[in-house]
Amino acid sequence: MIIVKIGGGSSINIPAIIEDLAGLDEQYIIVHGANALRDKLAQDLGRPKQVLTSVKGYTSVYSDENLLDVMMMSYAGLRNKRIVELCQLHGINAVGLSGIDGKIIQGKRNKGIRVYQGKKLKIVRDFSGKPRKVNAPLLQLLLDHGYVPVLTVPIIDEFNAAINTENDDVVRVLQQALRADTVINLIEAPGFLKDQDDPSSLITNIPVSELETREQQVEGRMKRKMLALRRLFEQGASKVIISDGRREHPIRNALAGEGTVIE
Amino acid sequence: MIIVKIGGGSSINIPAIIEDLAGLDEQYIIVHGANALRDKLAQDLGRPKQVLTSVKGYTSVYSDENLLDVMMMSYAGLRNKRIVELCQLHGINAVGLSGIDGKIIQGKRNKGIRVYQGKKLKIVRDFSGKPRKVNAPLLQLLLDHGYVPVLTVPIIDEFNAAINTENDDVVRVLQQALRADTVINLIEAPGFLKDQDDPSSLITNIPVSELETREQQVEGRMKRKMLALRRLFEQGASKVIISDGRREHPIRNALAGEGTVIE
Repeated sequence: MIIVKIGGGSSINIPAIIEDLAGLDEQYIIVHGANALRDKLAQDLGRPKQVLTSVKGYTSVYSDENLLDVMMMSYAGLRNKRIVELCQLHGINAVGLSGIDGKIIQGKRNKGIRVYQGKKLKIVRDFSGKPRKVNAPLLQLLLDHGYVPVLTVPIIDEFNAAINTENDDVVRVLQQALRADTVINLIEAPGFLKDQDDPSSLITNIPVSELETREQQVEGRMKRKMLALRRLFEQGASKVIISDGRREHPIRNALAGEGTVIE
Repeated sequence: MIIVKIGGGSSINIPAIIEDLAGLDEQYIIVHGANALRDKLAQDLGRPKQVLTSVKGYTSVYSDENLLDVMMMSYAGLRNKRIVELCQLHGINAVGLSGIDGKIIQGKRNKGIRVYQGKKLKIVRDFSGKPRKVNAPLLQLLLDHGYVPVLTVPIIDEFNAAINTENDDVVRVLQQALRADTVINLIEAPGFLKDQDDPSSLITNIPVSELETREQQVEGRMKRKMLALRRLFEQGASKVIISDGRREHPIRNALAGEGTVIE
């Protein structure tokens, strides 16, 4: 079982990814983002996303009801259905689902983010949270009958309301629930770069044993990504390939070891 | 088996419909529209829908790639996922699907609409068509495992591309595939009105035997609706209730016979 995570950047070559998947023998599911599409739609609608900065300095998108509406339109609507259509055009019988459909991915809503408003400390609560459970029987039912699930946010919280979450966390709970051995993560870069501004600084291999050390050496969003990776291996993943989603044959290249291979 | 068709008008009381469905014992599926939402979104994005008038005088929405994008956002995205969320909040384990997911509803693309451009006759082809087949095994699989399918457009054409279609036609193929005995059609009116501008002119009962005569007496869109109704009964439906979707308890009232009962 392979989990194919398709990044939400605007230069990801989705047709090339789906074309490759049509030739894949192994069982797989797709998890996709749509952040560039969401941001553009929010902008076009005159309701640009707001970013919150916590007192600890972490930034996150403020997921109010309006942002959830925009996410339902961009992630679960346009991007999901166009991916499903591309799959169908290539003979892949895809079924597109958000995490709220059949409670495929259920999580726990965040308690709130502590932010400063001027000099005042305030707790801002939004519709965001962390995934906890997967409806594996439903996914397995679809897989057993030849369907390829194409999953995206929002997910559902403990009160059955829609919430936003990080796709890295979605991949983590899916890997655990489906005992997927391989995760292919297609991004807008050749893989993990030593220097983010230098595409030639690609790190081709990271032994799992080094993940903890590397986590200490990086900051912010990258730190969270390293932690998410480490957890995948603690749960039983045997290989994660972070590879370029912008080129021709992104899946074939990833499986041939191009990009950053962590194992 | 009941098919619940929720109209896409802006004053349809969706929370009241879902609340009623939570108390329903019989098996059902939901088919919903979102035309008011689609039109508003298209307008907000500065890409208002275009309407074509055929040489025979019929009007239809011009479903180009852009309109399909907007439909994926409004029907399959925002409206579908908010309905699924409402279902989940009421303990209904809903799964939202467009017709392209798992090829649930496959159709045939229209050959083109003959229109006049100035004095020139032209054939305009768009992404629209008629549903022909239902993936009944997938719907049955979901129903058998306790899930309630929540269906909407687009559907998939014979070349596996997304196309727009009429919800009345979707209901027709679903009724046939699932051998549903009852169709509840929730609209922005008390039911079929003798005089469209007079809500008190409600026709409370139409015997099936009168449908053909009535079809001859009406025009345009109404004629098509009467024909669609007649076909439902030819296929084996035993009751169609056209009822007010704007009030409290729309399902309970419909099942109690309020609105127009055709049987």
